[in-house]
Amino acid sequence: MQEELLILIDLTLVLLFAKGLEELMAHLKQPPILGDLLAGILIGPTILGLIRVTHNVAVIGWLGVVILIFLAGLETEIEELKRYGREAIIVALGGVVATFSFALAVSYFLGHPWLTSLFIAVILAPTSVSVTVATLMDLGLLRSRLGEVIVGAAVADDVYAMVLFAIVSSIISYGSIHLETLSHIVLGLTIILSAFILISRKSNIIVEKLVRHSHLTGSLHIYILIIGLVLATLSSYFGLSPLVGAYFAGLALGGIARSRHLREFYGFLVSLISPFFFVYAGILLDPWSIISSLELSSVFTVVVLIVAAGILGKVLGCGIAAKLVGLDTRSSMAIGVGMMPRAGVDLVIAVVGLTTGVLTMDLYFSALVLIYATSLSTPILLKVILGHK
Amino acid sequence: MQEELLILIDLTLVLLFAKGLEELMAHLKQPPILGDLLAGILIGPTILGLIRVTHNVAVIGWLGVVILIFLAGLETEIEELKRYGREAIIVALGGVVATFSFALAVSYFLGHPWLTSLFIAVILAPTSVSVTVATLMDLGLLRSRLGEVIVGAAVADDVYAMVLFAIVSSIISYGSIHLETLSHIVLGLTIILSAFILISRKSNIIVEKLVRHSHLTGSLHIYILIIGLVLATLSSYFGLSPLVGAYFAGLALGGIARSRHLREFYGFLVSLISPFFFVYAGILLDPWSIISSLELSSVFTVVVLIVAAGILGKVLGCGIAAKLVGLDTRSSMAIGVGMMPRAGVDLVIAVVGLTTGVLTMDLYFSALVLIYATSLSTPILLKVILGHK
Repeated sequence: MQEELLILIDLTLVLLFAKGLEELMAHLKQPPILGDLLAGILIGPTILGLIRVTHNVAVIGWLGVVILIFLAGLETEIEELKRYGREAIIVALGGVVATFSFALAVSYFLGHPWLTSLFIAVILAPTSVSVTVATLMDLGLLRSRLGEVIVGAAVADDVYAMVLFAIVSSIISYGSIHLETLSHIVLGLTIILSAFILISRKSNIIVEKLVRHSHLTGSLHIYILIIGLVLATLSSYFGLSPLVGAYFAGLALGGIARSRHLREFYGFLVSLISPFFFVYAGILLDPWSIISSLELSSVFTVVVLIVAAGILGKVLGCGIAAKLVGLDTRSSMAIGVGMMPRAGVDLVIAVVGLTTGVLTMDLYFSALVLIYATSLSTPILLKVILGHK
Repeated sequence: MQEELLILIDLTLVLLFAKGLEELMAHLKQPPILGDLLAGILIGPTILGLIRVTHNVAVIGWLGVVILIFLAGLETEIEELKRYGREAIIVALGGVVATFSFALAVSYFLGHPWLTSLFIAVILAPTSVSVTVATLMDLGLLRSRLGEVIVGAAVADDVYAMVLFAIVSSIISYGSIHLETLSHIVLGLTIILSAFILISRKSNIIVEKLVRHSHLTGSLHIYILIIGLVLATLSSYFGLSPLVGAYFAGLALGGIARSRHLREFYGFLVSLISPFFFVYAGILLDPWSIISSLELSSVFTVVVLIVAAGILGKVLGCGIAAKLVGLDTRSSMAIGVGMMPRAGVDLVIAVVGLTTGVLTMDLYFSALVLIYATSLSTPILLKVILGHK
């Protein structure tokens, strides 16, 4: 068959299944991303095996996820942290520290090398609170202290996760820490940090100049995006994941990309091309390869331990931190549960781990189980905890 | 290097060079597409050889061009044909028939097999009047009879070209015409025609239902696009080029996609991803392979004859047709010259020809020379003809 026909069939299949299952998930009040992932599991090797050239999906997927993470940076509202900033920052920190430690310990206990353990620990660290936000909205509690702490903590959480990911991805790209590689890592981090500061301060002037001298229509949209892509590629060059560069570029450009119009455009773009990434994440799952190489009982142990680390880390870490900063017990429990769900940055980091060979298939599988388990249980648990207040 | 880094470097390079050279072309009042093409020639094997995995550019390029052609269909304003419809339809027909015949004769004379000759004839048939429109706007003649005939003829021209392309791509996918393959071709054309009629009539109801039951934001944009992609893939399955399906899907959906908002979105999307296709078109050019296989003098002959066929076909075909429907000599000359420029559907069809192996590199090179030659000379010639009226 001709190259372009193969490409088109793959891409059309991905979009059809992704949007169909996104609709289903949205109907079930679950995040659309779970639909994309399910679409990938369905059309990938796990079940139907319909995709002929996975690389075709990967190309658009990588572009899509860089733009998605860039947009996540762009949309990070540091203001969300203002009202209950101290509480939110501490709650997020509690969750990240606890989850990271639990996951590291569990993975080490399971006999994984320490780089792999570091990586799964980073995967488990971030949160994705869209299910929580929807549930709190249903309960009329989104604008309560509890709600605002969770929303603020999610913002802080993203930043912690990205900093952790920057450090760990940098370590992994050099394989181990020696004095020499340490200097490379520090150099990479310094360059991204400098670019971040430079763009934060000068982006207004640079972008304005670019647009004023531009002869193209819609050039503002494109140039802002290109800055993100360039910083992503740059961070990749210096041994960090491209996503780190994309995120911090977005964070730095947030100020000039405040217009609703611009964000609507990016939102549309992301809803069109980011499914390719999450479908790709589903296609990458190959449970048959785990079963052929490991015993079923040991796969079960891995999944249970990783999922437990992911859940307990957030529930205990965030819950105890919330209690410490002065929230009542019921609210603290709700915050712990509300910070549980995944299905965002965690999945992106997991795909990076799997494709670079740091992560094993059983750990990847566990991360996906954690995503579905937390996303499906959080609304129910939150309603139990908060329902009869 | 890691897969995702390679992908990102290639994609970022493409966007940077494409937008830089698009700016240059826009500054020179030339269509941006010439900048994309030049970017591809620059970073491809012709000069710098920077792109490591051409396939990465091709994947997004094919998606981009399907959306571009879909959008071209969507934006086809049949109303443009109303005022001077009869004139426009005849002028376009004159140009297409003359160019097609000249190109077929020249290619046959050069010793190419008749399928290749058919293909280069289809490539030379369409027009792309953006330079003409810009020039007429400068001269204040866009809303004159002359201007309206050209704009209307360009619309008719696109439809003729797509019908020709549908027939020829269908013949080529079966290699030759026998009674049996003829029935397949007729079947393919019938299916696309039926889908076109069905969508034209029922799309309102279908899309409205989809959107009403949708739980996703911005689903209208995505679903309309998916209909285009599905029809593109379908037409590809039945031996026609996917672009034929995309174009007619767009044409059929034009009615429900009238909103400025929706088109702005698609316009942005196209300005972001269609450069990948035209850069890819530039990367595909490999003049060194021509020089190593053919003598320089014979390459020169091919280029001169093809460019002459492409120019004379439009100037004489459209010019004489314009004269016949009652325009004065000066206007008829201007119409002939104004219909000369390429750099649109023609380039897309040329890439299809090259990647499917029907087109030889020397003919592809000639098509690119024709694009630059006509686009650069049209504004000057138009001003000479019309300037001192």
